[in-house]
Amino acid sequence: MLPRLTILAPGLLGASVAQAARHFGAAKHITLWARRPEIRLKLLTQPWCDAVADTAALASANADLVVICAPVDRVVPLAAEIAPTVSSHTVVTDVGSVKGEICRGAPQVLKGRGAFVGSHPMAGSEKTGWEHGRADLFVRRTVFVTPTEGTEPRAAERVAAFWGALDAEVATVTPDTHDEIVAHISHLPQVLASTLCAALAKREGGWRNFAGGGLRDTTRIAASDPKLWRTILEQNRDEVLRALRGYQDELHHLERALANRDWFEVQAILERGQAFREQFRPPPS
Amino acid sequence: MLPRLTILAPGLLGASVAQAARHFGAAKHITLWARRPEIRLKLLTQPWCDAVADTAALASANADLVVICAPVDRVVPLAAEIAPTVSSHTVVTDVGSVKGEICRGAPQVLKGRGAFVGSHPMAGSEKTGWEHGRADLFVRRTVFVTPTEGTEPRAAERVAAFWGALDAEVATVTPDTHDEIVAHISHLPQVLASTLCAALAKREGGWRNFAGGGLRDTTRIAASDPKLWRTILEQNRDEVLRALRGYQDELHHLERALANRDWFEVQAILERGQAFREQFRPPPS
Repeated sequence: MLPRLTILAPGLLGASVAQAARHFGAAKHITLWARRPEIRLKLLTQPWCDAVADTAALASANADLVVICAPVDRVVPLAAEIAPTVSSHTVVTDVGSVKGEICRGAPQVLKGRGAFVGSHPMAGSEKTGWEHGRADLFVRRTVFVTPTEGTEPRAAERVAAFWGALDAEVATVTPDTHDEIVAHISHLPQVLASTLCAALAKREGGWRNFAGGGLRDTTRIAASDPKLWRTILEQNRDEVLRALRGYQDELHHLERALANRDWFEVQAILERGQAFREQFRPPPS
Repeated sequence: MLPRLTILAPGLLGASVAQAARHFGAAKHITLWARRPEIRLKLLTQPWCDAVADTAALASANADLVVICAPVDRVVPLAAEIAPTVSSHTVVTDVGSVKGEICRGAPQVLKGRGAFVGSHPMAGSEKTGWEHGRADLFVRRTVFVTPTEGTEPRAAERVAAFWGALDAEVATVTPDTHDEIVAHISHLPQVLASTLCAALAKREGGWRNFAGGGLRDTTRIAASDPKLWRTILEQNRDEVLRALRGYQDELHHLERALANRDWFEVQAILERGQAFREQFRPPPS
């Protein structure tokens, strides 16, 4: 059990980290900081919040683990904000969806005051806001932990052990490998769902009301926050472009097979897709 | 209430039609026919099956409504099989996902012995087989009914009234309009889910186990039967190609915006997608 856990900028993920830490007994004392004072007041009434602080720096002083839950483009600035107050024994992590830029930038701004190790839980929702937090959000979900060559092994271990205590399945990879993987299994599906909706929006809007469960499920994540996803795509541009181009080749391949009435090839593509999907280990919903 | 309902080749959809007809009291006597004798024996033990027949033609004699539930490429051959026995008061429909070819072919083979009106319920599952049938499968789901200029209005009314009695929401459109709509809201999502899985299958298979709910939902329908979907894509090739090319333009547009670091445009596409998804009337799951 960590003596002191601090969560900065709790939204859906940060509130879930706090609730899970309380539920699983992963931390003794939980301090939260949110930029808006009215949110801090509300957080203070939650059973998974022991204290709030007026600044991120005050909230992080003496913490054993600081979890920065801000959007990807706000993680390094927040690490810079807390650098003056964190102690040498503090470990800082985040929950951002892209790891390369953050894992290069955060250690620099911390200047050795506290070790930085990136994290990325493969859990969330198209909903946002701390009110939607859930203590079981990470149960049996993958959480990537992304140390670099310069990371102290004990810092990486503390972060991995924390997520493990929340019942998550920890996968330790480099920041660059992480970014390549999520470009394929998370950012590419987001791009497809959003562009499918954007394309359908150009046709008759009323058509959507005829749709069955297929379109509903395929496009669920298109309801996600566009600003958040814009910053994710900004930070992972190169890997997303590579994944997208690989996908476009596959789609073009199917288009050609359809155009050529090559039904054998059409079926072969559908079968490859089915085989992949059937070996999928379904995460709990 | 229909005096005599016949269901040919019941799989998930046909068994659901029978169960729903019994549950909602939409038919008095329900006769089923399946090609395999061992299935006919099992069907006979179901409370939603009053009789089985050894041939499709015998099952359809004297029926008020015959629902052909075979895959799209088997509907017209089955209509030809029953043509010799159906009476002039019989109405024949189907549940196929593509309507143009079927609605041109079935009236021809029936030769005026029984009227044909196409149907297509926007309900189903990646599961197949009559064992997965559900009495509530059509509740609040769209069922397309697709009469042509040559269809007797009373025949179209009987089919629409039948689906209405199963608590479905009937949408009456021409076969060609139907095929254009489903190319966009059903066949295109299927193609995207299948090609996404096929593309990911070329990378490390183990990656899929890291995935969160986004990839799971986006690709659920990729588990559907490839043979079934091949025949759907065969019959709706032209409309699917048109929908697919429209989609590829949108995807290419996003790719260019990413490549050019045009983040304003990236966000605009995500916002258009979100707006479309948020106005979605979610069907019950």
